[in-house]
Amino acid sequence: MLEKLKEEVCRANCMLPKYGLVTFTWGNVSGIDRKSGLVVIKPSGVEYDELKPEDMVVVRLEDGSVVEGTLRPSSDTDTHLELYRACEEIGGVVHTHSRYATSWAQANRGIPALGTTHADDFHGAVPCTRPMKNEEIQGSYEAETGRVIVETFAGKDMMEIPAVLVASHGPFVWERNAAAAVKKSVVLEEVARMALYSETIAGKKLPEMNPVLLDKHYLRKHGEDAYYGQK
Amino acid sequence: MLEKLKEEVCRANCMLPKYGLVTFTWGNVSGIDRKSGLVVIKPSGVEYDELKPEDMVVVRLEDGSVVEGTLRPSSDTDTHLELYRACEEIGGVVHTHSRYATSWAQANRGIPALGTTHADDFHGAVPCTRPMKNEEIQGSYEAETGRVIVETFAGKDMMEIPAVLVASHGPFVWERNAAAAVKKSVVLEEVARMALYSETIAGKKLPEMNPVLLDKHYLRKHGEDAYYGQK
Amino acid sequence: MLEKLKEEVCRANCMLPKYGLVTFTWGNVSGIDRKSGLVVIKPSGVEYDELKPEDMVVVRLEDGSVVEGTLRPSSDTDTHLELYRACEEIGGVVHTHSRYATSWAQANRGIPALGTTHADDFHGAVPCTRPMKNEEIQGSYEAETGRVIVETFAGKDMMEIPAVLVASHGPFVWERNAAAAVKKSVVLEEVARMALYSETIAGKKLPEMNPVLLDKHYLRKHGEDAYYGQK
Amino acid sequence: MLEKLKEEVCRANCMLPKYGLVTFTWGNVSGIDRKSGLVVIKPSGVEYDELKPEDMVVVRLEDGSVVEGTLRPSSDTDTHLELYRACEEIGGVVHTHSRYATSWAQANRGIPALGTTHADDFHGAVPCTRPMKNEEIQGSYEAETGRVIVETFAGKDMMEIPAVLVASHGPFVWERNAAAAVKKSVVLEEVARMALYSETIAGKKLPEMNPVLLDKHYLRKHGEDAYYGQK
Repeated sequence: MLEKLKEEVCRANCMLPKYGLVTFTWGNVSGIDRKSGLVVIKPSGVEYDELKPEDMVVVRLEDGSVVEGTLRPSSDTDTHLELYRACEEIGGVVHTHSRYATSWAQANRGIPALGTTHADDFHGAVPCTRPMKNEEIQGSYEAETGRVIVETFAGKDMMEIPAVLVASHGPFVWERNAAAAVKKSVVLEEVARMALYSETIAGKKLPEMNPVLLDKHYLRKHGEDAYYGQK
Repeated sequence: MLEKLKEEVCRANCMLPKYGLVTFTWGNVSGIDRKSGLVVIKPSGVEYDELKPEDMVVVRLEDGSVVEGTLRPSSDTDTHLELYRACEEIGGVVHTHSRYATSWAQANRGIPALGTTHADDFHGAVPCTRPMKNEEIQGSYEAETGRVIVETFAGKDMMEIPAVLVASHGPFVWERNAAAAVKKSVVLEEVARMALYSETIAGKKLPEMNPVLLDKHYLRKHGEDAYYGQK
Repeated sequence: MLEKLKEEVCRANCMLPKYGLVTFTWGNVSGIDRKSGLVVIKPSGVEYDELKPEDMVVVRLEDGSVVEGTLRPSSDTDTHLELYRACEEIGGVVHTHSRYATSWAQANRGIPALGTTHADDFHGAVPCTRPMKNEEIQGSYEAETGRVIVETFAGKDMMEIPAVLVASHGPFVWERNAAAAVKKSVVLEEVARMALYSETIAGKKLPEMNPVLLDKHYLRKHGEDAYYGQK
Repeated sequence: MLEKLKEEVCRANCMLPKYGLVTFTWGNVSGIDRKSGLVVIKPSGVEYDELKPEDMVVVRLEDGSVVEGTLRPSSDTDTHLELYRACEEIGGVVHTHSRYATSWAQANRGIPALGTTHADDFHGAVPCTRPMKNEEIQGSYEAETGRVIVETFAGKDMMEIPAVLVASHGPFVWERNAAAAVKKSVVLEEVARMALYSETIAGKKLPEMNPVLLDKHYLRKHGEDAYYGQK
């Protein structure tokens, strides 16, 4: 069942330690098969170097019920599902506690777009959610986490800024597939790191970059007029 | 004598350089056999890559006297012993000068709980001890270090916050066994690092996170209602 | 055609990940053959570990037209060309988003000369360009980027300070050949990093170093009276 | 001639990149044979991985004249010689531009003793020299650098604080032999790094640690009452 997707999701999970995005088991990747409405996700608390495609857990998008797999799915599964439900174009979701992105989340600040590295991949600042309310935390916490993310993107295109910082927690990143979401997580970590350094160098909080330059770089890589890379 | 524990403690010591927690010989791990009241600890000043289980030193919990071993035990042995005496549940103790945790200790500040990464492993801020008094330093220094740590935890559960920063010195970490204490040291280093970055990003000292969120994450991983990982 | 130069440029591109200057494909190196007026440059968006000399693209200095190669040249080609046109002595150009240099660029600050490490390779502060105007960004963006760099060096010797930070973007570095430009990029990154730390340590923006010391170190390595290294 | 010392000095030089203390050829180590009054030092500008014992240059302590070797000695040779002349106990000298120590030098600040990591190896703050005067820079620069270092230690024991930061330049470190001086350089880099972090965490410049604690740790490892390590 979904053997190809399981392999993709397994490989994407194993990219997390390779790219230095995780300590121990602090991260999980999922991918979705839109046709069947099934999501493949990492099992909870399993080490990456022991992970095999057949360990992946298959859950139903609709209600999160486990369809296949003997292990428990990631404890963050319900957050992933909320994201898949909110935006049809999402094909893969990543959650990590990557060091620099998480540090911004802990400061309850979004990551301002300060340069073309950011603009090449994110069409604007990466937002930070509002703090979660006590009743959300004490309720269906993981699903509520997803809902707060979706609320943060009200009126925005989730695919143009495919990442968020959950306040006091860390980043969630999504893309058209699992591997692309991991690569975007690497970019997020890099821009989070450089934004910290830039503000230290400036000795103050920096304003967003010129939106004309932001557009230029984003559109150089995305959309019909893109001209970066090979055709 | 205690061959299995010696092997465990030796292996745990060798994890220190693997996880980047030590420079040269700046760290030591011990483990206890509660039944016999014997503690196994790294010999003083020996390089990790030369360390063999038979080099481990066995000392008596009661009085620190060496029961077995031809090498001198770690110079910090008496601090380890005080911790074992103060809390029955401690099975392993780690001391390092790991970079970020030590930097907080040198600033004489505890590490505030700023996010869920912290809350997943520590049920509150990791405290910093008061500065040691001159007579403590000039007396039984290592034992006094242990006593100041224990004093810092008066009225608190040492197993819920299994780490401390000794002011102007560095971290001591404990857990149910030696390997777990090393892993907790890795987490401590990571949260110390991110807390530094978060405060830099915020441009100010940050308050503790919402205690409801702290509880949620701590209890997601600890206690009877834990639901992280596999059963 | 230009086989030797293609090999040099290919190898120089592959030095970028080796020296930790790039994430993914975020950097490009070119080299010029002054006699034929042809520039050899990395193809756009290709991974370094797949790069072969025959993938290099050959473009005409005069107008940027592709003379040889089946892949599209780097999207930054026109910036490289402006630099080659502005200074006859330039033999190689490097563009990266290296972390620390880019962080200064994002803060819209040049890198002050704070010590002899800087002075050994740069005869003064590495400047940051003015922000680009909207009409420049929306016009021939990459060529305009090159022109703004050249404008920044009006009245200065580009070979004595062979690097610039493009505001809100990142560094361009040049030298007598491609490999030397990569090595200079490593130095730039290192001095960018140390300047950030030095200002953090000082708790304030630091003034330029004593120009007599700057001259001493620069001239110890450059010009007729140089006495560093082997004859 | 001095084959054993040449091998030691060669090996010590090769430790510099291994410990991450140097970029390219930015560092040099020497050792002295007090009996013959000869100093063995790295040749100038040669890569570490090509370095062979027979490449080492032998110079006379008295006047710096080359006694053996076909390559030119390190351009910093005269600084090394001044240190050997100033203190009979010095057996090896290291100069690097290691990142964190150099950052303090560029801020023209010595490294305060903030914790026991520092105290274990340095019996007090590591001082920064006064800025060099223009006539010193334009005169016998390298010898003058050595003289300014010696001036900085007037009335102090160079072996108890075996390192200095040359203002706007970087660290010089010495010890009883070349390998020990390299190891001390690693410690210096580590305490330089942690002191930067500690002050960032404190949000201010930190005062020196309690001198009683400083003495305790220094004397735990040095002198007749030392009890760290094996006998």
